[in-house]
Amino acid sequence: MKNNNENLDLKKMRHSTAHLLAYAVKRLYPQVKLAIGPATDNGFYYDFEFTKPLRQEELKKIEREMKKLKKDALPFERSWLSIAKAKKLFAKEPYKLEIIKEISKGKRANLGKKNEVSLYKLGDFVDLCKGPHVENSSQVGKFKLLSIAGAYWQGNEKNKMLTRIYGTAFPTKEKLDHYLWQIEEAKKRDHRILGKKLDLFVIDENIGKGLPLFTPKGEAIRRAILNYEYQLEEEYGFSHVACPHIGRTKMYEKTGHWQHYRDVMYAPFSIDGDEYVVKPMNCPHHYMIYASRPRSYRDLPFRLAEAGTCYRYEKSGELSGLFRVRSLTIDDAHILMTEEQIEEEFSRCIAMIDKVFQSFNLKDYYVRLSLPDPSDAVKYIANDDVWQKAGDKLRQIVKKNHLEYVEAKGEASFYGPKLDYMVKDSLGREWQMSTLQLDLFMGKRLNLKYVDKDGRERNPVILHRGLTGSIERTMGILIEHFGGAFPVWLAPIQVMVIPVSDQANKYSQEIVKKLKGKGIRVDIDLSDIRMQKKILFAQEQKVPYMIIIGRKEMAEKKISVRTRENKQFNLIKLDKFISLVLKLNSSKNVNLWYN
Amino acid sequence: MKNNNENLDLKKMRHSTAHLLAYAVKRLYPQVKLAIGPATDNGFYYDFEFTKPLRQEELKKIEREMKKLKKDALPFERSWLSIAKAKKLFAKEPYKLEIIKEISKGKRANLGKKNEVSLYKLGDFVDLCKGPHVENSSQVGKFKLLSIAGAYWQGNEKNKMLTRIYGTAFPTKEKLDHYLWQIEEAKKRDHRILGKKLDLFVIDENIGKGLPLFTPKGEAIRRAILNYEYQLEEEYGFSHVACPHIGRTKMYEKTGHWQHYRDVMYAPFSIDGDEYVVKPMNCPHHYMIYASRPRSYRDLPFRLAEAGTCYRYEKSGELSGLFRVRSLTIDDAHILMTEEQIEEEFSRCIAMIDKVFQSFNLKDYYVRLSLPDPSDAVKYIANDDVWQKAGDKLRQIVKKNHLEYVEAKGEASFYGPKLDYMVKDSLGREWQMSTLQLDLFMGKRLNLKYVDKDGRERNPVILHRGLTGSIERTMGILIEHFGGAFPVWLAPIQVMVIPVSDQANKYSQEIVKKLKGKGIRVDIDLSDIRMQKKILFAQEQKVPYMIIIGRKEMAEKKISVRTRENKQFNLIKLDKFISLVLKLNSSKNVNLWYN
Repeated sequence: MKNNNENLDLKKMRHSTAHLLAYAVKRLYPQVKLAIGPATDNGFYYDFEFTKPLRQEELKKIEREMKKLKKDALPFERSWLSIAKAKKLFAKEPYKLEIIKEISKGKRANLGKKNEVSLYKLGDFVDLCKGPHVENSSQVGKFKLLSIAGAYWQGNEKNKMLTRIYGTAFPTKEKLDHYLWQIEEAKKRDHRILGKKLDLFVIDENIGKGLPLFTPKGEAIRRAILNYEYQLEEEYGFSHVACPHIGRTKMYEKTGHWQHYRDVMYAPFSIDGDEYVVKPMNCPHHYMIYASRPRSYRDLPFRLAEAGTCYRYEKSGELSGLFRVRSLTIDDAHILMTEEQIEEEFSRCIAMIDKVFQSFNLKDYYVRLSLPDPSDAVKYIANDDVWQKAGDKLRQIVKKNHLEYVEAKGEASFYGPKLDYMVKDSLGREWQMSTLQLDLFMGKRLNLKYVDKDGRERNPVILHRGLTGSIERTMGILIEHFGGAFPVWLAPIQVMVIPVSDQANKYSQEIVKKLKGKGIRVDIDLSDIRMQKKILFAQEQKVPYMIIIGRKEMAEKKISVRTRENKQFNLIKLDKFISLVLKLNSSKNVNLWYN
Repeated sequence: MKNNNENLDLKKMRHSTAHLLAYAVKRLYPQVKLAIGPATDNGFYYDFEFTKPLRQEELKKIEREMKKLKKDALPFERSWLSIAKAKKLFAKEPYKLEIIKEISKGKRANLGKKNEVSLYKLGDFVDLCKGPHVENSSQVGKFKLLSIAGAYWQGNEKNKMLTRIYGTAFPTKEKLDHYLWQIEEAKKRDHRILGKKLDLFVIDENIGKGLPLFTPKGEAIRRAILNYEYQLEEEYGFSHVACPHIGRTKMYEKTGHWQHYRDVMYAPFSIDGDEYVVKPMNCPHHYMIYASRPRSYRDLPFRLAEAGTCYRYEKSGELSGLFRVRSLTIDDAHILMTEEQIEEEFSRCIAMIDKVFQSFNLKDYYVRLSLPDPSDAVKYIANDDVWQKAGDKLRQIVKKNHLEYVEAKGEASFYGPKLDYMVKDSLGREWQMSTLQLDLFMGKRLNLKYVDKDGRERNPVILHRGLTGSIERTMGILIEHFGGAFPVWLAPIQVMVIPVSDQANKYSQEIVKKLKGKGIRVDIDLSDIRMQKKILFAQEQKVPYMIIIGRKEMAEKKISVRTRENKQFNLIKLDKFISLVLKLNSSKNVNLWYN
């Protein structure tokens, strides 16, 4: 099991740095009103109401003040106060008063045993806070304030817009520097910017927010991924199905989605008096295919796969390019099986996922064993024994397959625990991707059946599998992971043919035809700009290979190849080049780029 | 142009036979109340209110009565009557009174110049009717009453259920007999029955009416079709895109779908206060991809293709297997181009469609030039000149491409005239499939632009193309056309490997692996039933080839092949068989089945 303490320590340190920030701000701008200041995945922020707009330059000054306070090694001291006294203490802090109100109503968990609220004091700065914190301000590590943004109080656009100061903190300068490099590099690789520059996808307000349209080049990548997965699934004995994108609300009531998953589902619409919704998941449709015939133990494991586009609600403020979308194509599968088959089927899926990650050059990953949170029972189908059994089973599978893992409570699906794959990209950023979920409930709940060896009817258990998760998100991750310079098998245009002059056009077009005939994605630049510019343009478009055709190439019936990294191979045989590209296409090898 | 008079004559004759039916019924059952009795595509019907349920056997008696009346050569006589007098005449016929009321309100077109209703008299039977009719009852041709069904008055389930008698009529006995054979044969080939028997698709009430789920074998066919079309589109210079299945209602207001096409659209649902609908067409999504970048004349023709699943309302009573569905995957394309490119692009699409039909062994087709109905202006975007121009252009294209065609008013799309392909299947039944639509409006309406050679901005015109129409419907047609016995390239399972005994299992499985490796759809029958039964079962499943592996085959490292039509090829080389199947797969040749 992966050590998770490091993460908790980091969080504590960053949260403490947020307090330090608030303290410094309060010293420099006494009129400021305080809202909240949590740690985040990559740092921390604090929301303030300033009396006049804060400028980016002022962050330096605040940072200096923080450093001074850090040197003083001020202790973080915890104390408790009754609601009434707390209200008095924060009389001039309207946001804190609102929070106290929420605490007193039980909407926020901050009450101690004696119905007192928890406070932390740092120097003469006091904040409402559950903690934990580092011992004193000298322990907040190396930090940096990053940016200023507007943020609505409570995330509600009807409320006042506050000023959010983002910062980050790390235990060492090296780690901080690496992170700062990472965010600079990430800006350059931003898939929303590259997506536009490389013409991969469009999000158009006329169609709707969070609904990406894949343009020809984006669709070429998408299809390369889906075809590869399809092939892999065929190899692994999956059968493919195709289902519509709407379904009756009643069905989702039966499965429990409507009860447990409604927040992300869209409003139903009526057809002839029946309520329908755009589907948030593919499961029910697949179950009905299973249920359409009598099944026997011989039919199990019954593996159904489909890249099915689902529709889920995300707040418009949280939508972000392909990372957070409202239409997501899940490379989904459902394996209906006996309990005895669980281990084998999980192991096969674990192997498949590893294969896919290798093809994406994503080699650094671990799994999160996502378990239910017993204190939040309403989120889950009730049956402690089954949850225990399923969780134990997954833990055992993870160990047997030698996967690095962490456990996380409260991250399970409503129908079962899962293995969520946490994957590091080329910048070292972590993404949640594939998921394998064990569902011991639904077979029984929907009365799905098979006739067992002994002639008795039994309910199958179910493995829900998202091979990479959502194709949209995967594409966003891959665009940034590769900085748009996709390996050959994924590149939307694999070869750009560049005739040096008009005389070379005919021969160049013959080459295009040959490559196309072999299924290679090829384009030709017939514009009347100079060759050097054509090469530059193709390189900007991150095309892996340029075939350059001039007089010599025509005379010798050969081609010259320039790579996007400016390696040049003069006068080689077309057949040799074709077989290289085909080999890369079929092997999905990301390293073997050039001959 | 195809002669359309024959059709009109047939319709007149059948409508007259419906009157003859009503007359005969009225003579045999004087208490019966009359509703309506039109001609249909394949015959006619008449709706009655009987005092007690009619039994199938009674049709014989009615038929005899009709034949008697036919012999009498009674003339069809037209007359006119004022509304008031008509009401008196039909005082005892409540349905006729309702019709007269509707006529008087202008809801039904039956009023003559003097505000009188049109009547037809046959013997002493008088019916409200616009005609036309044959001259006398001897001219009604060879007829047969087919069946009895329940039908709500006015098609509304809140109204009374009437008794509908279906019949058909043809000018000759040969034609009648052919039709009767056709419907008998069609019953055997009914794709709803075959779809179940061959396990190709499921329609489940839990998911919703008219929403087919493609099971593994159905999806294999669907994918074979879609992959073939994709490849063909690549050859023809189309680029593929992928779009979500919902879109903002506002967009459909801009395009005019909301105004002209709303009847078949589903109710909108709200996301963050914006209205969305499941898309009824793919056009707007494709337009927004076009609009996402500046385009120049060099980018035209801009050909976008996508097999996009759309959602359209069909009355639940009209849903029928895969023929009429609510979720339909259109093998869609939109070509944005200059006016000069119209002819060339249509010709290319006409060639593609012909190729596809050849691959489906659908060789008998003509096109319907679907024009607007000037008397129903509200259905179309208003601009007579543009409609005239577009219609003329299509007529010219049809002639230049030597297509057999008919013209039909009132069948155009709201944005332009179209060529609808009317295709005859192996039973001689006619189906509407592919469509090519010329749209001179939408480029301007949505302000889609390209920069022309002269530097000016112009609006492209648009060709909407449905390559076969909807994949669901196409699959339904193909299932019946082939009676489930698909050509090799479409067969969901192309090869069934049958080991004669357990000893042959291992060698058989090696063969399965080899075939799979070559992309051949193969299954193996490892059950412990006898070989002859395994063969029978595979033949029932319409698997084209069975590979039978016994002792001899193992000894000689060869295979024996049985076809679904019981031809046998003993001890042939596996490689030879593989190359045959691959050749059939790639050529889509439907005839060259066996070696």
